[in-house]
Amino acid sequence: MQTWPFRGSKGTVKVANGQLHKLAYSSEALGGLTTEFNVFLPSSASSSKPAPVLFYLAGLTCTPANGTEKGGFFNTAEKHGIAIVLPDTSPRGAKIEGEDDAYDFGSGAGFYLNATKEPWKKHYKMYDVVVRELPDKLKSSDLPLDLGRTSIFGHSMGGHGALTIYLKNLIAGPNAESTGPLTYRSASAFAPISHPSAAPWGHKAFEGYLEGGIEEGKQHYDAVELVSRIPQEKKESVKILTDTGDADDFWKKGQLRPEELVEALSNNGVDNENVIVRMQEGYDHSYFFISTFAPEHIEWHAKFLNA
Amino acid sequence: MQTWPFRGSKGTVKVANGQLHKLAYSSEALGGLTTEFNVFLPSSASSSKPAPVLFYLAGLTCTPANGTEKGGFFNTAEKHGIAIVLPDTSPRGAKIEGEDDAYDFGSGAGFYLNATKEPWKKHYKMYDVVVRELPDKLKSSDLPLDLGRTSIFGHSMGGHGALTIYLKNLIAGPNAESTGPLTYRSASAFAPISHPSAAPWGHKAFEGYLEGGIEEGKQHYDAVELVSRIPQEKKESVKILTDTGDADDFWKKGQLRPEELVEALSNNGVDNENVIVRMQEGYDHSYFFISTFAPEHIEWHAKFLNA
Repeated sequence: MQTWPFRGSKGTVKVANGQLHKLAYSSEALGGLTTEFNVFLPSSASSSKPAPVLFYLAGLTCTPANGTEKGGFFNTAEKHGIAIVLPDTSPRGAKIEGEDDAYDFGSGAGFYLNATKEPWKKHYKMYDVVVRELPDKLKSSDLPLDLGRTSIFGHSMGGHGALTIYLKNLIAGPNAESTGPLTYRSASAFAPISHPSAAPWGHKAFEGYLEGGIEEGKQHYDAVELVSRIPQEKKESVKILTDTGDADDFWKKGQLRPEELVEALSNNGVDNENVIVRMQEGYDHSYFFISTFAPEHIEWHAKFLNA
Repeated sequence: MQTWPFRGSKGTVKVANGQLHKLAYSSEALGGLTTEFNVFLPSSASSSKPAPVLFYLAGLTCTPANGTEKGGFFNTAEKHGIAIVLPDTSPRGAKIEGEDDAYDFGSGAGFYLNATKEPWKKHYKMYDVVVRELPDKLKSSDLPLDLGRTSIFGHSMGGHGALTIYLKNLIAGPNAESTGPLTYRSASAFAPISHPSAAPWGHKAFEGYLEGGIEEGKQHYDAVELVSRIPQEKKESVKILTDTGDADDFWKKGQLRPEELVEALSNNGVDNENVIVRMQEGYDHSYFFISTFAPEHIEWHAKFLNA
């Protein structure tokens, strides 16, 4: 792992009494491209007391900077001694034709899946980055992180990523064919794309990146579909929290569909005190919404990460 | 007052259970140019219970968006029922030659003073905007703000603005020749330019904007100079809190000079429990530093605004 200059001056910056590290590595999963990510380390973290890790997956058009600068995460993370890892949202610089033509496909829009279709499949494997490669890099680094205690949250496309990564792992267990080495204790999301196989953004991503199109997406990368497959013996352990604003234009346009997440949870009888799907009056899709509820989400994850 | 579209969609956005308004007006003080500003209204504010007002002045290169998006102000402001008003840092679009040539002079660098030198004096009057015109506009608006209870804080150049506006008002009283209608209860600052007449940024601004150069700046717009003029009977009522990081490159380069603020306070015998000038280990000049200490600053102002 190499440390890159942070904001042109330093590899790390102090925030909330902890340290923010801007890092990057050359990614095999992304076909050799360099991928950047940020890590917030609370002041309590040390080699003898490594911190539990909360992954934050950002939404369409974002880089690791958005959640870092606008999320309002770090004071609460410091309070509970939690590290936050913020990956990028796509490969960068793959030089595929059309990669930079739309805000919702290609650069900034990796959808946290593994592409199976040409010309994307060589580079667009953000699922592998988040679930396998980045955790391995973190484990082999000297950062004092306890990857035996991890949770995941995200916004919009990143909410989709957090929910699907959590659910696949919950259902198949760690180190299955389709999962990575981590066990996620909890997942939360702001305005997640909950049912991408029924939404325009999801259709575009699945048809563009996947050889099997929407059907393949439905099988592997759709929270509503995955919820319906949670087996009986695991229902009590499900820990999902989502918030969506009712002034969110993307909700109004049918991109998010939290109602169908509620329906799927209900149909499969997934119901315990830690399954919480909420609408929030008056909030839109912006980081103003995220920064409002981020402290509560982090507190909620802290209960499980520090248990 | 006109309401402008907020982020291309709405004039207001919900944040921290309150409302953020993006507003603008045509400014006489700025020679007829339109100036933008943001207002956060806590949910407790109503016409029968208007909220006290904390002004936030941003630093070089900033717009009202920086503090709004990265400051981490609103959850704490909501908790204490405080409104936050965020003006711009300079006129925009004056079309003066050289206006956009440097980050530390012209656009984004109004220095919260009234220019007296050609060609700047027609437009560059951010002091008047912040102390007179904007308060009048707010009073005549239908926003539920209690301008009888105000305080002011800021960052870097805006920390200089907050301290000098507060000190001039404290010394001369409201509605004096050099002050506006408000009485500020407290002032705080992150990394303020504390002694501009002894610093490169201050020299450039004073020599560029003021007919009388550094001497005129020293007389009117220098916190260290103003502190030396606080009269005996007002010393007990002084309320100043500043934080500066010791990893701040601008502090190392002598732009901020908080040591000389401490010396001036000490020399004039200004010392009570609400005169607090701190260095903070390891912090730089960024919004990561601001967002770390902003909740504490807002809590501190709340004591006086809600007294």
